[in-house]
Amino acid sequence: MASDALPRRIVVVGTGLIGTSIALAMRERGAEVYLTDRDASSLRMAVELDAGRPLPDDGFDGPAELAVLAVPPAAVAVTLLDAQKRGLAEVYTDVASVKALPLDQAAELGCDLTTFVAGHPLAGSERSGPAAARADLFLGRPWAVCPAGTSSPEAVARVEALVRACGAEPVTVEAAAHDRAVALVSHGPHVVASSVAARLTGADDVALGLAGQGVRDVTRIAAGDPALWIGILTANAEPVADVLEAVATDLAVAASLLRDGSEEAATHVADLLLRGKAGRTRIPGKHGGRQSAYATVPVVIPDRPGELAMIFQAAGIAGVNIEDVTIEHSPGRPLGVLEIAVAPEAAEKLAAELRARGWSVPG
Amino acid sequence: MASDALPRRIVVVGTGLIGTSIALAMRERGAEVYLTDRDASSLRMAVELDAGRPLPDDGFDGPAELAVLAVPPAAVAVTLLDAQKRGLAEVYTDVASVKALPLDQAAELGCDLTTFVAGHPLAGSERSGPAAARADLFLGRPWAVCPAGTSSPEAVARVEALVRACGAEPVTVEAAAHDRAVALVSHGPHVVASSVAARLTGADDVALGLAGQGVRDVTRIAAGDPALWIGILTANAEPVADVLEAVATDLAVAASLLRDGSEEAATHVADLLLRGKAGRTRIPGKHGGRQSAYATVPVVIPDRPGELAMIFQAAGIAGVNIEDVTIEHSPGRPLGVLEIAVAPEAAEKLAAELRARGWSVPG
Repeated sequence: MASDALPRRIVVVGTGLIGTSIALAMRERGAEVYLTDRDASSLRMAVELDAGRPLPDDGFDGPAELAVLAVPPAAVAVTLLDAQKRGLAEVYTDVASVKALPLDQAAELGCDLTTFVAGHPLAGSERSGPAAARADLFLGRPWAVCPAGTSSPEAVARVEALVRACGAEPVTVEAAAHDRAVALVSHGPHVVASSVAARLTGADDVALGLAGQGVRDVTRIAAGDPALWIGILTANAEPVADVLEAVATDLAVAASLLRDGSEEAATHVADLLLRGKAGRTRIPGKHGGRQSAYATVPVVIPDRPGELAMIFQAAGIAGVNIEDVTIEHSPGRPLGVLEIAVAPEAAEKLAAELRARGWSVPG
Repeated sequence: MASDALPRRIVVVGTGLIGTSIALAMRERGAEVYLTDRDASSLRMAVELDAGRPLPDDGFDGPAELAVLAVPPAAVAVTLLDAQKRGLAEVYTDVASVKALPLDQAAELGCDLTTFVAGHPLAGSERSGPAAARADLFLGRPWAVCPAGTSSPEAVARVEALVRACGAEPVTVEAAAHDRAVALVSHGPHVVASSVAARLTGADDVALGLAGQGVRDVTRIAAGDPALWIGILTANAEPVADVLEAVATDLAVAASLLRDGSEEAATHVADLLLRGKAGRTRIPGKHGGRQSAYATVPVVIPDRPGELAMIFQAAGIAGVNIEDVTIEHSPGRPLGVLEIAVAPEAAEKLAAELRARGWSVPG
């Protein structure tokens, strides 16, 4: 096969969320997928989900085109060595959230680094395990591809073919730069979210009753699997520590400025808020940054069957394409607010159509 | 009128997001609403939005039943004094995010505290100003009511009637306890989100290209108005500083444990993640905590008009009540994933119905 063609036979080592999702995605593209996992129940579930068939103990006829090592960062190097000794595949990649350390370890163990191309799909979930897997997990997501100087161009092309087959966008980045980047946009924020959430363990019920969407969003990722995350954080220790120290310093300084109470001190705290607002706008939005271009039409909806269908039907009749929807429920009440994101020029038309049909659309 | 009856005539001082939203909500309930704001353009816009009519300079015949002071924390006391001097209303409340300091200031200024009951609706938006106002902003939200010892029972009952008329749930809490609570669940997390977002100002495009939903959620509230927030933070300085110092300490310790690199050090970092996970579960969910009781059915949807209507129609035909929906767009691709939250017993029925009609529902 050409190295950039869709791999037709792959092995997935590790049937957790990511491994099983890759298997499902490749099955949808018609590939033959073999699965293996140290945990027999995880493997059985992945097979039941039709993600592939179990890898026979004695292998099969000749190597697969590609083996995906979907194991924690600390297990990548030893799993690669074992897979290469068994001759499982022509090309190997991994999916760990950390790239430099496993690569160093693989070099130390004497792995063949011409056939290995490190990778990292930027997709996930607070849920883990094969049951949470889905073929569309990688659709439109970035997927870091980190060829070492030793990786052969053919191996790189084959891994990029896998990435595209899963619906993701390959982003080529050097391993150390990758690790600093994810410390900043993923690993560091994870620990920060955990620290904020940890303060809530001692909070009284009144305080928690005043919690709004803000603290829910800030702490959402803290619900992730601690066992999985401690492996990621320790494997990317220095870059994560750099980010945490910088944030800790900002927060300690802000605290002392607030206690100072002077107007000048307040100006410095305001500077931090301004820098935060500026940094926030640098994150690319949905639809490649077009998110802020949408207008939002809010509709008050009774919480009963059929209501959403009627609203979306009305939008269809008005010829309005819905870009996004959010439902804001009212805790304890059979009532919610549906926010419909549409092109700005369509907002007024949609609002008028919905009002004409009796829905309450606040001005 | 009875003190717990729906107020029929109110004055709203300050036509920003919160003041105008209260005005709109009370207009929907049939109340007569008078508006005033130091900023003439803000007042004009609120009037154009039909939130009420401008308060005449020479007042009107007799006091209103209630005046809502929707001004920043630092302006509450002086605005209350002025309103009481003018005899604007029988009862006064405010909506500031901080309660103890304005109350102290009002006492110092010699305001009449028998007719004043401090309040704080826990609702908001990254947007500000009357244009972002909506009558349903408070639906189902908690609204802290903080009577001082001096507040008359009639005044408290009238403010609670306003809260309920806006669709919110009154939560009675003492001012200092309120301030510590919001430092923990709102003001502290806001500064933390700003600090994480501030790190992104210096990030390169590759790093930002690897940003996923996690950092988007952690930093969402950092998009809020810095001028508004600095007023809140300085008025609640000590409780916020306490929270920021605790989080800063956790983060600095985590950084040094990660640099340590020993297994014992990793155990302590894992403890922080576990505490974070435990704290996260203490936040009440949508529908009064029932959120986790829903099952999610993912559907791959082409991004074209009519598709959502057809999906919701299919759900209606299957007799399935939709509890929540989220659309996950794929950046740069005309394809997305719709996640439909339903009662667990309905998930399989919905998935089968959608598959039968040709949609791709991952297993």
